[in-house]
Amino acid sequence: MTGVLHAVDPRTGARLGPGHPAAGPADADRACELAWEAFPAYRRTGPEERAAFLDTIADRIDALGGALTERVTAETGIPAARAEGERARTTNQLRMFASVVRDGAWLDVRTDPALPDRTPLPRPDLRRRRIPLGPVAVFGASNFPLAFSVAGGDTASALAAGAPVVVKGHPAHPGTSVLVAGAVREAVREHGLPEGVFSLVLDAGHELGTRLVADPRIRAVGFTGSRRGGLALVAAAAARPVPIPVYAEMSSVNPVFVLPGALRENGADLGRAFAGSLMIGAGQLCTSPGLVFLLDGGDESSAGSFVDAAAAAVAAAPAAPMLTAGIRAAYDAGVARLAGTPGVRTLARGVADPDIATPCLPGLFLTDDTAFLAEPALQEEVFGAASLLVRVRDRARLREIVAALEGQLTATVHAAADDRETAAELLPDLETLAGRIVFGGWPTGVEVGPATVHGGPYPATSAPATTSVGAFAIDRWLRPVGYQDVPADLLPAELRDGGPA
Amino acid sequence: MTGVLHAVDPRTGARLGPGHPAAGPADADRACELAWEAFPAYRRTGPEERAAFLDTIADRIDALGGALTERVTAETGIPAARAEGERARTTNQLRMFASVVRDGAWLDVRTDPALPDRTPLPRPDLRRRRIPLGPVAVFGASNFPLAFSVAGGDTASALAAGAPVVVKGHPAHPGTSVLVAGAVREAVREHGLPEGVFSLVLDAGHELGTRLVADPRIRAVGFTGSRRGGLALVAAAAARPVPIPVYAEMSSVNPVFVLPGALRENGADLGRAFAGSLMIGAGQLCTSPGLVFLLDGGDESSAGSFVDAAAAAVAAAPAAPMLTAGIRAAYDAGVARLAGTPGVRTLARGVADPDIATPCLPGLFLTDDTAFLAEPALQEEVFGAASLLVRVRDRARLREIVAALEGQLTATVHAAADDRETAAELLPDLETLAGRIVFGGWPTGVEVGPATVHGGPYPATSAPATTSVGAFAIDRWLRPVGYQDVPADLLPAELRDGGPA
Repeated sequence: MTGVLHAVDPRTGARLGPGHPAAGPADADRACELAWEAFPAYRRTGPEERAAFLDTIADRIDALGGALTERVTAETGIPAARAEGERARTTNQLRMFASVVRDGAWLDVRTDPALPDRTPLPRPDLRRRRIPLGPVAVFGASNFPLAFSVAGGDTASALAAGAPVVVKGHPAHPGTSVLVAGAVREAVREHGLPEGVFSLVLDAGHELGTRLVADPRIRAVGFTGSRRGGLALVAAAAARPVPIPVYAEMSSVNPVFVLPGALRENGADLGRAFAGSLMIGAGQLCTSPGLVFLLDGGDESSAGSFVDAAAAAVAAAPAAPMLTAGIRAAYDAGVARLAGTPGVRTLARGVADPDIATPCLPGLFLTDDTAFLAEPALQEEVFGAASLLVRVRDRARLREIVAALEGQLTATVHAAADDRETAAELLPDLETLAGRIVFGGWPTGVEVGPATVHGGPYPATSAPATTSVGAFAIDRWLRPVGYQDVPADLLPAELRDGGPA
Repeated sequence: MTGVLHAVDPRTGARLGPGHPAAGPADADRACELAWEAFPAYRRTGPEERAAFLDTIADRIDALGGALTERVTAETGIPAARAEGERARTTNQLRMFASVVRDGAWLDVRTDPALPDRTPLPRPDLRRRRIPLGPVAVFGASNFPLAFSVAGGDTASALAAGAPVVVKGHPAHPGTSVLVAGAVREAVREHGLPEGVFSLVLDAGHELGTRLVADPRIRAVGFTGSRRGGLALVAAAAARPVPIPVYAEMSSVNPVFVLPGALRENGADLGRAFAGSLMIGAGQLCTSPGLVFLLDGGDESSAGSFVDAAAAAVAAAPAAPMLTAGIRAAYDAGVARLAGTPGVRTLARGVADPDIATPCLPGLFLTDDTAFLAEPALQEEVFGAASLLVRVRDRARLREIVAALEGQLTATVHAAADDRETAAELLPDLETLAGRIVFGGWPTGVEVGPATVHGGPYPATSAPATTSVGAFAIDRWLRPVGYQDVPADLLPAELRDGGPA
C-alpha cells in the first residue's frame, strides 16, 4: 500500500498532520539491501564503539524533549507523564544495552585449550564466541510507542548484538516513529556508521511487513502484538527457503490466583489494587490481569470483599482513550462476547465519556470454575481494561484450571501465611505455565535487568526460551561459532589469549 | 507398523536374531504418559541425585562390555575398535553431563535484589533460573548407534536438564538400542526414579515418530539424520496446537578451502590427509568433507599434487560396509548423479569388495567454479565416502561460491603463511556460513566440551543458535522463569539467598 499515512488523535478522532509518505516494496527492499551491506562493518565494531553509539541514540531521543511527548500524546492518547516515563524507560534501556555490550558476557566466550599429549587423540584448540545472526526486522507495537517501537527493546538489543535493524513502524504512531528514527539516524551519522545500520519503513497494511520477513537478507524478526499478527509472521518465516526465527510476544491474560487466606485477610485491599493494575493504560498492556481466580472454597461470601471492592473501583473508573479505533472496536466485541457467555455475569462497567473518540469502558465480569472450564473462549485475551473473576471451589479444581490454561507471560499469586501449603502446591504448575511468577503484587510493570523474564510458553510467545525485555533479550540475535586451531592473528580479538574478554 | 524388527548385518546381508517386537501407537502413547507423569518428580531431583543417575547410566553401559561391541558391529558393520571408542565417547559424555549438572551453571541463576527506596518506583526482588521444557522425544541416528542414539548426546543432555526422555530407536540397530535401554532402565530403578524418566520405542517406519512429535505431552524433540526426516519433524511440530522446538541436525557437506600457499607448499600431504578424513566410517559422518575448494588461481598444475595424492588414496581405498542397504542405495544414486553432472569428472573410485553386502565404493570427483556455480545440486550431501573437488580461479570467485553455499556444520581452511590475507578475508564469510571453523585440520572428529559448537545455519540444523554436542547442548531443553517477590521459603533452593548456586 502506498500513499500518505496520517495518524489520528484517539481522544478526539481528529486526523493529525503532517502526512507521512508510506513506503512501497522498493523502499523495503532497499532497506534490506542497505542493512545487508552494513552488516559486515557493523558487526565488526568494537564494544566501546557500539556502546557509545547506543548511548548516543539515547541522548538524541532524550533531546527530542517536549516535541516527542506531544507527538506521542497526540497519536496514542497516552498521557504526557506516562509518555515521559516511557521515554525514560526507552533511553535507560538503550543505555543498559550499552553497558551489556561493554561488559562482553553476551559474547559467551569459551576456551578449551589444546591438549597435544592427550591419548588416544590430541585435543585441538577450541574457542567459541557468539556472532549476530544478520539484519533483523523489528515490528513496532501499538501500545508502547517508544519502549516497544522504533528504538525499543528489540531494536536496542539487536543493535547491541551487532545486527542492523529494519523497523516496520506501527501505523498508529507514524509521527512518533519518524521523530525517533531521526534520532537514531543522527547517531548513525555521528558515529560514522553505514547508513543501513538502521532503517524505518512505514505503511498502513501488512504487505511490507510480510515482504521484510520474506527477504533473504533479513535473518531474524522481533514482534510484539496480536496473536494473529505474530502467527502470520511465524508462518511467513517458516515458509522461506531458509527459515528464520521469529521472536513474537503475542498474547497473555496473566492469571492472578487469590488464595483463601489472602481473600479473608485482605480481600478489599486486593480487590482495589487489582482494579488499579487493570486500569493502567486502559488495560492495553501485555501484562494486564485479565483473569482472576478466587479460591473461595465454594463459599461465595469469602470472596465477597474482593469482588465488591473490585467492582466498586471499576464502576467508578472513567473511560480512557484506546490507542486506535480498531483496538477499541475489538475491545467492545471482546467485552460483548464475555458478557454474553452463559454463566458469566457483568459486575461493573466504568463511566462513559462521550468526549472520547475511542473510549475504553472498563469491564469486570464474574463466573465460576465449572463455567470457565466449559468454555475455552473465556481464556482468550480481551485487549483493554476488561477482566474476568472466576470463583474456584477447591484446590483440585484450581489445578485442573491451571492445566487447562494456555501459556502466559505472567502468573500472580496472593497468599497469606496460612496459604503456604496451597501456594507450594501451585508453584510448580505456574512454572510450567508462565514466564514470570509474581507474589503479592501485580503483573503490570516489567523491570529491565539481568533477572527479567518477559516471555513464556506458547502462545504467550513463539519462542519460550527467550525474553524480549532485559539484558538477555540480546540472546535472540546471536548464535555460537566455534574456532578450531585458528591462528592467533586471525582470531577475533576477544578470543585471543589474554584478550579483552 | 507393528510386527517384529530384525536387524541385518550390513557386511553379510544376513538377518540377525533375535527379533524385537515393534511398538504400536498404544506403546508410544503409554511412553508419553509415563514421561509426563514422571516429569514433576524428575525435574525436582537435586543436582547430586541427577548427576549420580547419569554416572550410573554410564557405568551400566560400560558394564555391557563385549556383548555391546559385538551387537554394534553385527548391526552396523562398524569395526569393534571404533564401536568401543564410541562407547567410551558415549559414557564420557554422560559423565560430562553429570559434572555439568553438579556445576549448576546451566541453571543460569540471576538475582536483581529489591530496591525498596528506588524512585519513582521501588524495584521488586527478581530472580531467575532455568527449568526443563518437559518430556523430550529423541530420535536415534543410524551412524552413531551409541553416541547419537538411545543414550547419546540428546538423551544425556535432556536427562541432565531434568527432562524425561522417550527415544524412538533407529530401526537399523534394534538390538543395540535394546541393550542400551536396558542399561538406562537399570539406572532408573537403582536410583528409585519413576519408570517414565526413560522409555524406548522401536518401529520400522515413520508413524511412531510422527506420533511422538504430535503428542501434547512431548515438549521438545532432538533429531540427527537426513534433511527430509528432520524437516518432516519440524513441520509436524509446527502443526501442533502448541508448537514445540525441534532440534534437528540434518545435513552438511563441510566445505574445505585449500588456499594457494597451502596447495603449493603441502599439496600432496593435504590430499592424502583429506582422503583419510573422507574415508572415516565410510564417510557416514555428519562432518565428512564432501566439498573441497582448491584455490589454484586458474592454474591447474598448482592444484595437481593435492588432486593426484587424493585420487591415488581414494583409488587404493577398499570398499567398506555402509550402515544399511537403503543408505547404500542412496549413496550409489548420489554418486551416479555427481558423476553424470556436466562438467564433473570422476577422478577415482575405491576398490570393490564383492564379499560386502552394502559396499561403499569411495568416489572422488573434480569440477571447476563455473560448473559448480551453475548447478546448485552439486552442493547436496551425498552421505558416504564421496567428495567433489572444485578448482577455483580467484578470490572473487571464492567469495561468490561461499555466498552461494547452504549453511554448514563446519568450514575448514588450509592456509600457508602467505595465504594470510586471503584467509583473513574469508574468515568472516565462514562465520556466517558454518557453526565451526577449522584451520589446518579436518572437520571429522567432534570434541565434547564447553567450547564445542556442533550446529550451524539452516539447513545444517533447524536451530542455528544451539549445539547438539558439548556442555551447552543442555540449553536446548531449558527455558527461563522469573520469580518476583516470591517468599524465601517457597523459592527453589538454588534461588534462595546463600543458596547452592
